[in-house]
Amino acid sequence: MFAEVLTIGDELLTGHTVDSNSAFIASELTERGYWVRRITTVGDDVEEIKAVVREILARKPEVLVISGGLGPTHDDVTMLAVAEALGRKLILYEECLEKIKAFYERLYREGYIDDPSLNEGRKKMAYLPEGVEPLENTEGAAPGAFIEHEGVKIFVLPGMPREMKAMLEKEVLPRLGKRKFVQRKFLAEITDESKLAPILKEALERFNVRIHSSPKGFGKYIGLIIFAEDEEELEKTVEYLESKGIKLEEA
Amino acid sequence: MFAEVLTIGDELLTGHTVDSNSAFIASELTERGYWVRRITTVGDDVEEIKAVVREILARKPEVLVISGGLGPTHDDVTMLAVAEALGRKLILYEECLEKIKAFYERLYREGYIDDPSLNEGRKKMAYLPEGVEPLENTEGAAPGAFIEHEGVKIFVLPGMPREMKAMLEKEVLPRLGKRKFVQRKFLAEITDESKLAPILKEALERFNVRIHSSPKGFGKYIGLIIFAEDEEELEKTVEYLESKGIKLEEA
Repeated sequence: MFAEVLTIGDELLTGHTVDSNSAFIASELTERGYWVRRITTVGDDVEEIKAVVREILARKPEVLVISGGLGPTHDDVTMLAVAEALGRKLILYEECLEKIKAFYERLYREGYIDDPSLNEGRKKMAYLPEGVEPLENTEGAAPGAFIEHEGVKIFVLPGMPREMKAMLEKEVLPRLGKRKFVQRKFLAEITDESKLAPILKEALERFNVRIHSSPKGFGKYIGLIIFAEDEEELEKTVEYLESKGIKLEEA
Repeated sequence: MFAEVLTIGDELLTGHTVDSNSAFIASELTERGYWVRRITTVGDDVEEIKAVVREILARKPEVLVISGGLGPTHDDVTMLAVAEALGRKLILYEECLEKIKAFYERLYREGYIDDPSLNEGRKKMAYLPEGVEPLENTEGAAPGAFIEHEGVKIFVLPGMPREMKAMLEKEVLPRLGKRKFVQRKFLAEITDESKLAPILKEALERFNVRIHSSPKGFGKYIGLIIFAEDEEELEKTVEYLESKGIKLEEA
């Protein structure tokens, strides 16, 4: 049961913007028990996006969350690329067009924009791949999309963090299952990380858990994250580590 | 002339850590004229890393920068995975072992650690793929590696930001060529982004440039980044945009 995340945007590839969206999405998926296996970032380019979407589908994740490139400008090409990757047409969704129209009319009434009319760029956002379920954007103009394709649940979200987060919470998470595993974060008191290695190795063999350790400088503390199928297995692992002299403090 | 970035770490896939390393690396590569085409993140897993390194090599980038997973713990497996991906053995580099020894002796003398001896985890960091040039880590224990493989310059760097940045600046950038293209960042004054689309589209057809635009809310300003082969082409593009009524302010 694994998931992948794909973020799209030239600004991520030039390093002008740090991709905090993928961490947010990954964190929410992890919380719900998905093992995020890979995060990929490509630019606003139809061929690149198409290629990477096809590669991801070939790996058969249960869930693919895509974020970025849904806006009104020439470089927002994600929906077109996803449509092409899935072998579907890009078609006008009338209900989306109505919402986009209402959105710009509201901005106009509130004095944010000079012209509420549906120009080409604004209208473009109502075009989604054929057969998707449009996802509501409560914070912006561009709708998202959900489609199940060859067993993969694909969600396409905007790239603006506020819009992405709202859509993830209101539209994506309710369509996913319940939490499937537990994780807990600790600070382990130990002089240095390499002393921990043989003890962790033994714990991994004894229990059905995954453990991630990360150094917190060269001080006395090492960060540990333990993942388990259930609370009991996690608790047994914690007890074992403590029996080996590792002091754990919940972080 | 494109580059790829690969960051490695379970903490990135769970969303516990935002991957700011890839943005830093991408930014430095972009500054030097490399077009970063893709950023990928995978976990601390030999098979995953091996698979993705092979996929990247098959795309034939000029440069591949890998960061993360060089430390002393059980989950630091990057060098092993890279060695396997390249069909090379992992071998002990005596000069690296000496430096690692000196590093822990210094930490011991300075009172940071209780035991300076070379245990298994510490010794592991001196094992690099056969035939690489070790890269010096001025900020930590784990050396990096440089190798040219099938025409791809591969750099393997630590994941701790301070160590990665120092190694990138001191060891990687001097091995890369000079800046090959220019980029400039602007704020464009316009009521909303979609009005800009037809003008940008025309500019892209007329000039040999790439333009990235990003909304700055629904206010009067749109962020623009223009990339060109040389300053002259960039200047001509700016003049064209201004002739079409777009007010540009260098950002």
